[in-house]
Amino acid sequence: MTNVLITFTVKEELMQRLRSEFPQVDFTISTIKDQNALETAEVILTYGEDVNKETLGQALALKWLMVASAGLEKMPLREIGERNILITNVKGIHKTPMTESVMAHLLAIKRAVPWIYSQQRKNEWSKRSGSSELFGSTALIIGPGAIGSEIGRLLQAFGVKTIGCNRSGKQAPHMDDMIAFEQLNDTLPQVNIVISVLPSTPETRGLLTYEHFVLMKEDAIFMNFGRGDLIKEEQLIKAMAEHQIAFCVLDVFENEPLEENHPFWDMNGVIVSPHVSSHSSEYVPRAIEIFIQNLQEWMKEGTDFQNVIDVEKGY
Amino acid sequence: MTNVLITFTVKEELMQRLRSEFPQVDFTISTIKDQNALETAEVILTYGEDVNKETLGQALALKWLMVASAGLEKMPLREIGERNILITNVKGIHKTPMTESVMAHLLAIKRAVPWIYSQQRKNEWSKRSGSSELFGSTALIIGPGAIGSEIGRLLQAFGVKTIGCNRSGKQAPHMDDMIAFEQLNDTLPQVNIVISVLPSTPETRGLLTYEHFVLMKEDAIFMNFGRGDLIKEEQLIKAMAEHQIAFCVLDVFENEPLEENHPFWDMNGVIVSPHVSSHSSEYVPRAIEIFIQNLQEWMKEGTDFQNVIDVEKGY
Repeated sequence: MTNVLITFTVKEELMQRLRSEFPQVDFTISTIKDQNALETAEVILTYGEDVNKETLGQALALKWLMVASAGLEKMPLREIGERNILITNVKGIHKTPMTESVMAHLLAIKRAVPWIYSQQRKNEWSKRSGSSELFGSTALIIGPGAIGSEIGRLLQAFGVKTIGCNRSGKQAPHMDDMIAFEQLNDTLPQVNIVISVLPSTPETRGLLTYEHFVLMKEDAIFMNFGRGDLIKEEQLIKAMAEHQIAFCVLDVFENEPLEENHPFWDMNGVIVSPHVSSHSSEYVPRAIEIFIQNLQEWMKEGTDFQNVIDVEKGY
Repeated sequence: MTNVLITFTVKEELMQRLRSEFPQVDFTISTIKDQNALETAEVILTYGEDVNKETLGQALALKWLMVASAGLEKMPLREIGERNILITNVKGIHKTPMTESVMAHLLAIKRAVPWIYSQQRKNEWSKRSGSSELFGSTALIIGPGAIGSEIGRLLQAFGVKTIGCNRSGKQAPHMDDMIAFEQLNDTLPQVNIVISVLPSTPETRGLLTYEHFVLMKEDAIFMNFGRGDLIKEEQLIKAMAEHQIAFCVLDVFENEPLEENHPFWDMNGVIVSPHVSSHSSEYVPRAIEIFIQNLQEWMKEGTDFQNVIDVEKGY
């Protein structure tokens, strides 16, 4: 038997499918603290937050780690590499929910949805919504990979001009224009919306600073849906306190969960999304779909796995 | 001089443009109660709500009524017809803001934006958003004209299957399927989203009833962005109180403004949008754009006007 430890909740319906497709596999749904399951697991399916040097050291039989998330920067990748453990993730399944979240927040701001909700709480009919439109805006998408390009595609459908921004300035899909990181200062004064979906790498940490927000338009919207270390929070707080821009929508933070007394909660124009932009009722079913395809490969001792992580690069 | 009375606020910048393009026109910004302006106006530019039999009777010099809105069902059309007054509107300028409002509300519901806002008011970090996705849904668009088709185009971009519904079932743009009004009962059980953008006509008044909501899915979303008389409010209240569907987003009502103690304000799953879905900072500039083109035609005594209303048909 092949032992598989799953450390998150999977609906019975999906478990039945796994068990019937893989009769030669013993699936255990438990936590990483289940010593026996951890020691004997050849495969672990996890969101990743429970894998550290200690738990990895106890996973004596581990040969394949399937991580049902995208960012692996907190993983003990060196140790995983040294032990030659295969590591795969679910790259690609964040595209749809994250893009829909970005569009939801953008359209909500433009079409005065927060104002509409707050008027309703007061039973107050008024027409002074102050709404505007997404149509005709210009958006800068920092990190136009799979997710960023999908955001670009939908922004274009709404009549938004899209400018992609990456290290090299190399063309990406659904971008009307492209710039390189070093052209940021020239471009920021011209755009209405700045969206980052950058991962956390040595190059992206602290890429944005207070000065970038000074360059943006006063009515600009900034969205960070990548990683919280893109900008030092004290600098973003300063920019928002000074109303350098109108709105920021943050799905990621330097420290998560955000403390109860963090200034972001109550700041005008700051929308706190508790790192849920990739969440969706479709998330686990899609992750299991990728897992099944990789597990089929695993059982026939193949090598053609989806989303294999290069432990040197970290993605 | 040609006297033009404008009965709503127009920014000085746009007024300057009007005055410089039409030096032979005397523009007065005032209200319909300005007796002198009303009596001498050859042209009135209005949102329409101030035009009734009485004010029309006092507008002795009136030859052209330019209405900067879409629904004309409350206008004294018979009297306008009898006096041979030209009447034009701004059909077409509602398309972009209304479509963006529909998409904003839909995406907000699917991506748990109301929940995100309410968590923020409590400084409470939680990941139990219960979010889902628009992707993969099926939407029924009742009244796929210019606005409905634009909604269809954007829904399709999000991976939504679109079914249009009109009197005849005749094909409309951006609809994967079409049905006629009499096929509603067969179709409602299969769709996740029902959007009406129907105008108020003898055929559309009361088109939907409580029984239609019984047929819809329990997690369906209903949006009325057309006219409030599409369904009797007591029937919609009953359906929502019984949780026949999950959400309704209403931009239009039987009586507007909605009274302070109306049940809709506090009902679970009901979102009250105070008839602002077509509002936008771009609204007046676009209306003035159409007015300018028609006024050019008027000044050269031409006949090629945009958006002329047939007083018999009412649109």
